Amino acid sequence: MATVQDIGLSAAINILSAIAFLVAFAVLRLQPINDRVYFPKWYLKGIRGSPAHNRAFMSKFINVDLNTYLRFLNWMPAALRMPEPELIEHAGLDSAMFVRIYLLGLKIFFPITVLSFMVLAPVNWTAETVPRIGALRLSSIDKLSISNVPHGSKRFWAHVIMAYVFTFWTFRVLYNEYKSVASKRLQFLASESRRPDQFTVLVRNIPPDPDESVNEHVEHFFCVNHPDHYLTHQVVRNANQLAKLVENKKSLQNWLIYYQNKYEKYPSKRPTTKTGFCSLWGKTVDAINYYAAEIDRLSEEERVERERILSDSTAVVPAAFVSFRSRWGAAVCAQTQQSSNSTIWLTEWAPEPRDVYWNNLAIPYISLSIRRLLMAVALFFLTFFFMIPITFVQSLANMDSIVKVLPFMKPLVKKKLIASFIQGVLPGLALKIFLILLPTILMIMSKIEGFTSHSFLERRSAGKYHLFMLINVFLVSVIAGTALDQLHSFLNQPPSEIPKIIGIAVPRSATFFITYIMVDGWAGVAAEIVRLVPLVIFHLKNTFLVKTEKDREQAMDPGCLQFAISEPRMQLYFLLGLVYSAVTPVLLPFIIVFFAFSYMVYRHQIINVYDQKYESGARFWPDVHRRIIIGLGISQILLMGLLSTKEASQSTPALIALPVLTIWFHFFCKGRFESVFTKFPLQDAMIKDTLEKATDPNFDLKSYLRGAYIHPDFKVTELEQSPEWIEEEDDHSLVPTKRSQKGSKRESAESSIGSSYC
Amino acid sequence: MATVQDIGLSAAINILSAIAFLVAFAVLRLQPINDRVYFPKWYLKGIRGSPAHNRAFMSKFINVDLNTYLRFLNWMPAALRMPEPELIEHAGLDSAMFVRIYLLGLKIFFPITVLSFMVLAPVNWTAETVPRIGALRLSSIDKLSISNVPHGSKRFWAHVIMAYVFTFWTFRVLYNEYKSVASKRLQFLASESRRPDQFTVLVRNIPPDPDESVNEHVEHFFCVNHPDHYLTHQVVRNANQLAKLVENKKSLQNWLIYYQNKYEKYPSKRPTTKTGFCSLWGKTVDAINYYAAEIDRLSEEERVERERILSDSTAVVPAAFVSFRSRWGAAVCAQTQQSSNSTIWLTEWAPEPRDVYWNNLAIPYISLSIRRLLMAVALFFLTFFFMIPITFVQSLANMDSIVKVLPFMKPLVKKKLIASFIQGVLPGLALKIFLILLPTILMIMSKIEGFTSHSFLERRSAGKYHLFMLINVFLVSVIAGTALDQLHSFLNQPPSEIPKIIGIAVPRSATFFITYIMVDGWAGVAAEIVRLVPLVIFHLKNTFLVKTEKDREQAMDPGCLQFAISEPRMQLYFLLGLVYSAVTPVLLPFIIVFFAFSYMVYRHQIINVYDQKYESGARFWPDVHRRIIIGLGISQILLMGLLSTKEASQSTPALIALPVLTIWFHFFCKGRFESVFTKFPLQDAMIKDTLEKATDPNFDLKSYLRGAYIHPDFKVTELEQSPEWIEEEDDHSLVPTKRSQKGSKRESAESSIGSSYC
Repeated sequence: MATVQDIGLSAAINILSAIAFLVAFAVLRLQPINDRVYFPKWYLKGIRGSPAHNRAFMSKFINVDLNTYLRFLNWMPAALRMPEPELIEHAGLDSAMFVRIYLLGLKIFFPITVLSFMVLAPVNWTAETVPRIGALRLSSIDKLSISNVPHGSKRFWAHVIMAYVFTFWTFRVLYNEYKSVASKRLQFLASESRRPDQFTVLVRNIPPDPDESVNEHVEHFFCVNHPDHYLTHQVVRNANQLAKLVENKKSLQNWLIYYQNKYEKYPSKRPTTKTGFCSLWGKTVDAINYYAAEIDRLSEEERVERERILSDSTAVVPAAFVSFRSRWGAAVCAQTQQSSNSTIWLTEWAPEPRDVYWNNLAIPYISLSIRRLLMAVALFFLTFFFMIPITFVQSLANMDSIVKVLPFMKPLVKKKLIASFIQGVLPGLALKIFLILLPTILMIMSKIEGFTSHSFLERRSAGKYHLFMLINVFLVSVIAGTALDQLHSFLNQPPSEIPKIIGIAVPRSATFFITYIMVDGWAGVAAEIVRLVPLVIFHLKNTFLVKTEKDREQAMDPGCLQFAISEPRMQLYFLLGLVYSAVTPVLLPFIIVFFAFSYMVYRHQIINVYDQKYESGARFWPDVHRRIIIGLGISQILLMGLLSTKEASQSTPALIALPVLTIWFHFFCKGRFESVFTKFPLQDAMIKDTLEKATDPNFDLKSYLRGAYIHPDFKVTELEQSPEWIEEEDDHSLVPTKRSQKGSKRESAESSIGSSYC
Repeated sequence: MATVQDIGLSAAINILSAIAFLVAFAVLRLQPINDRVYFPKWYLKGIRGSPAHNRAFMSKFINVDLNTYLRFLNWMPAALRMPEPELIEHAGLDSAMFVRIYLLGLKIFFPITVLSFMVLAPVNWTAETVPRIGALRLSSIDKLSISNVPHGSKRFWAHVIMAYVFTFWTFRVLYNEYKSVASKRLQFLASESRRPDQFTVLVRNIPPDPDESVNEHVEHFFCVNHPDHYLTHQVVRNANQLAKLVENKKSLQNWLIYYQNKYEKYPSKRPTTKTGFCSLWGKTVDAINYYAAEIDRLSEEERVERERILSDSTAVVPAAFVSFRSRWGAAVCAQTQQSSNSTIWLTEWAPEPRDVYWNNLAIPYISLSIRRLLMAVALFFLTFFFMIPITFVQSLANMDSIVKVLPFMKPLVKKKLIASFIQGVLPGLALKIFLILLPTILMIMSKIEGFTSHSFLERRSAGKYHLFMLINVFLVSVIAGTALDQLHSFLNQPPSEIPKIIGIAVPRSATFFITYIMVDGWAGVAAEIVRLVPLVIFHLKNTFLVKTEKDREQAMDPGCLQFAISEPRMQLYFLLGLVYSAVTPVLLPFIIVFFAFSYMVYRHQIINVYDQKYESGARFWPDVHRRIIIGLGISQILLMGLLSTKEASQSTPALIALPVLTIWFHFFCKGRFESVFTKFPLQDAMIKDTLEKATDPNFDLKSYLRGAYIHPDFKVTELEQSPEWIEEEDDHSLVPTKRSQKGSKRESAESSIGSSYC
């Protein structure tokens, strides 16, 4: 077991590297040339202009004012200064609530740490350790932990009581936080100005009709079944092919600009390129002409494809965005079942336009169901068996096989230094590459599952990642052995043994996790603030692609909070804190430093850097809450396992109520708050409708909603070309019925529906 | 292990007793005096008149036509003759679908039995049994079972393939059945004539308002939030005290009639009674006068209580039945969330008036949540620890303690015969009494959980009973040992061991279960048709209480299908059939006989006897479906356990896909059909509304709904007294707004809601 000295050394290294990152950040962010890397949010908001205009040439690029360097940590108080309402206004509710998770960590663990050090640390420290045969010399860290308390001691009652106190404190904080986030969400939704998604419902699995097009079918169905509320709708067209063309064209345009820039700099020689793959081989041609021609060709293809999509009725997928006259009407439609066959006419609250994941709108019910089964099985195998292909790759990546496949490497491999480098790095590399790719793999799996909005996809990926971390980081680190070994032993060991095995291992792993927290939590978060990758990419783009201010705007990559990655990582710290709170109090301060530091860093980032791609209104909170409760449950079961091996037969049964209470608390909170995040209550919808009707009675909602839910690649065109096709689409629909509907809405709504549509 | 002879003997005994019951039934049902016991349903329908009027004196009581006795089994074809649509019409969808569960059993198990006997029985029979040391001589039953196949044999592939075939066949039948029941339910709901619950929503947890009564608050809330659809509402008053008084009065009235009858028979002597407990002690008084006075006193108390409830605002509980102008409006309100606080203004589809469980309407959310926690814990203890108090009672019920408490029993106990009788019967008696009381205990637990309709309570009790049966009948019979022993061993044995332990025990228990099926299934069902208890009670009542035809009508007890008891018992047979289908084919014919016989018996009973208390529209089907799937999953896991002990290492892993597929099938069916049973689709509501509007445009819905949801004890009065109080309640509400609402509904719906209510 590691001694205090070992930990001290590790702490010193990590603190130094964290400070190095912070200094690098402090220096880099003050250079005007990096301004767009470290403050992109303000540029996007239009508040901050390019510093290049109004300064001397030198200071356009480098900050020479030495005073500013002295205050290199002044971003910290600045990050904390903005009050929360302003932060919500500035960065959106999603971001503001995301940094609140770090604050929640502080709220939970600060009092727990204080109590733990006041009560448990003395109890553990002063326990008379019975000298045991073959027992290791306990280091000071172990003297503070539960390992120091002899078997069967009455002192375990202190741990049991503290477990209750910690649990109830966590309940209290979680409940208050859930309540506060829920009310913030409601406030946010209520204060929001008019948005298309408030009036719109996404309808999927529209059944095919032999006599009518999807367009007509949707209109008829909603005219009949929501006669007073239906306003208009937009069918969804399959634009995946078009999206690919647009993507290609964009990349070609980048190359064109690159070569044009090159030509401008060296007008003596026209740049050339090759027509083959990656411009590596093929015929050599004039680059500017080649790319210009290619772009023309793609533009033509794009135009043809666009026309095809608009005219071809098979391009219409059986999904539509249906809009209503009022929020009330939309809320009703989103929450009710339309047809007695619950696999058709599925309605759900429409995601906001930016949030729609267009590719998944057309999946039929049975296919969805099978996809979910397959992905569940795949996730199981990914979690428990991912080491098998990696081990296989590792076995390939040794000297002999390399020499076999690539014989020209032979002389190189013979050199000892290179050989040892390959042997040292390659095996680890496969695992590292896998871990870097993992969030992408999980996201692809979520996409296959068929969810329809980016926010939902992120939440699902986060759930998968959380499971993976729980098993492959937490359990694997506590019990040495791969996840597969564990699965095997879990199947072949009694359920009552498992908490014991892990429970015994938990105090031993404390020092490992302390190191982990410092590396991943402290230094990792400090690295985040430097934004090394965006910095490099920005300068590369800036050098080669930027011609105008607009290009520079596009070269800027503000990035965004990656919920699917950051949240599960953060959950690991909650889990560690809860597990070790009653076992090894000495781990807790490290966690507190992590939460405090991350809170400041991410608050700074969301204020100055990140630009969220969508706004879901803190829709992720129930997931965060649930996962903390899972952590709490795990900590309780492990404590029970640990105590039961300590022959504390009196105090262990006293813990049984804790998991039961935790499960109950979960369901209680779920029933109490979750619907705020999934449904739109009619009362709130009605208040908002009424207010709006009073303040703006003549608003033309229909034209406001027209074109709100169009595939983004159509929208681009809309700006470039005349918006004919939208009009055209309107003409597709039942013009006569619509006209008559407008004229005599009231009568038609009352008249019998059986006799005529609308 | 039992031999074929043993089973043959048991079968003979049980078949004889079943035949005895059937003969008793045949004889008893032909006696005119028993007509009201065996054909009460027709009396209630008013189709069958009392046979006493139009016959000779003798044949009033006893059937002397011997011909009718010869055809003593002719009720069987008669029971099967009525086609299903007519049965639904006659007995309701609940009953018709309940007997369909027996038919479902036949549909699943008949082909499985045929296949099993064609494939598995020969495979097992012809397996070359390796003579093992110490092995028991296998009886013929065992030679047909999987026990006969030697370890590591390739023949197990037959069992694996058959397990797949059986699973897919079960999927197919279950899917078709779910589909058919769902469409029957939709048809039933669509064809139903107007019913108050179609327009009504039960609103619970109405928040208190300092300025308004519950009555006003409800009206304002729904006028604002459902302006075009709200029609009227009825508040719920706490009439539990009143219900008790009414109950008491009824019992006293019975006594009064009894003594009046007695006096009429023997006019010479006025009957007397005693005023104390159970008329056993106290002052002797004239019975008729005494009961008449008591009834007067109670009537007065009832009147006072009724007035108190009507005038006292604290008697109004925070729940109401809110009715809407259309089914569409009610469907919308029932399926949506009203307030952003999801613990208030909870709306759900109103149960039909007879189905409402009035006592539970007023429970606040937090209390509900705690009640459910407590009942879950209680159910756990009841299931695993119920033997502890019973063992305690049994230990008290031995000779010595009896003598100690009741010394006068001493000489009696000394007699050997009586002593051995007491020792033989008493210990079993405690368990038997517990098992008889169990459904009642579970029902009380469900009532404590706070569900608001009798149908829901029955479904919840059935769920609890199913769990109890699964653990305390199935598992306890398979593995000898109490549930508590099992819980202990399950906690201390590896999860992979448990299916093995049970798997090995399964073939051994086949003969026990065959006997169980014959006793509980065959003879038990035959006993059901004789209706011994209602027969005795009817004749007692007929002798002492009946004066008029109306009294005789009330003395009749048609009984009803006890879903909470019968369904979980039936599920045990599904479980046995599925578990033994691939293990011991010889058990299957016994199950088929059970299902076929029960189907006939219960079809006869629902046609001629049972009178359902409520109609839920086969709302229970998802539970039935789920439990059969649970049985299927258990059978697959046990087969895996069994095969893994048979060293069939090649074939066992091939079974792993089965439980995964089963879980997927469950979710697929749930998504596909369950909403039919829980929600009312808007399309169907709209069709029904439109039809009704066309056929009956001037129907006064408001007066139709007035008084539909009144506590039944108020309803009694309504008939007796003038219905003033209903009018009065209407006056409580906002008369001016209502009037204006009626006059200018259309304008008010359009006008801004903020400015005025409605």
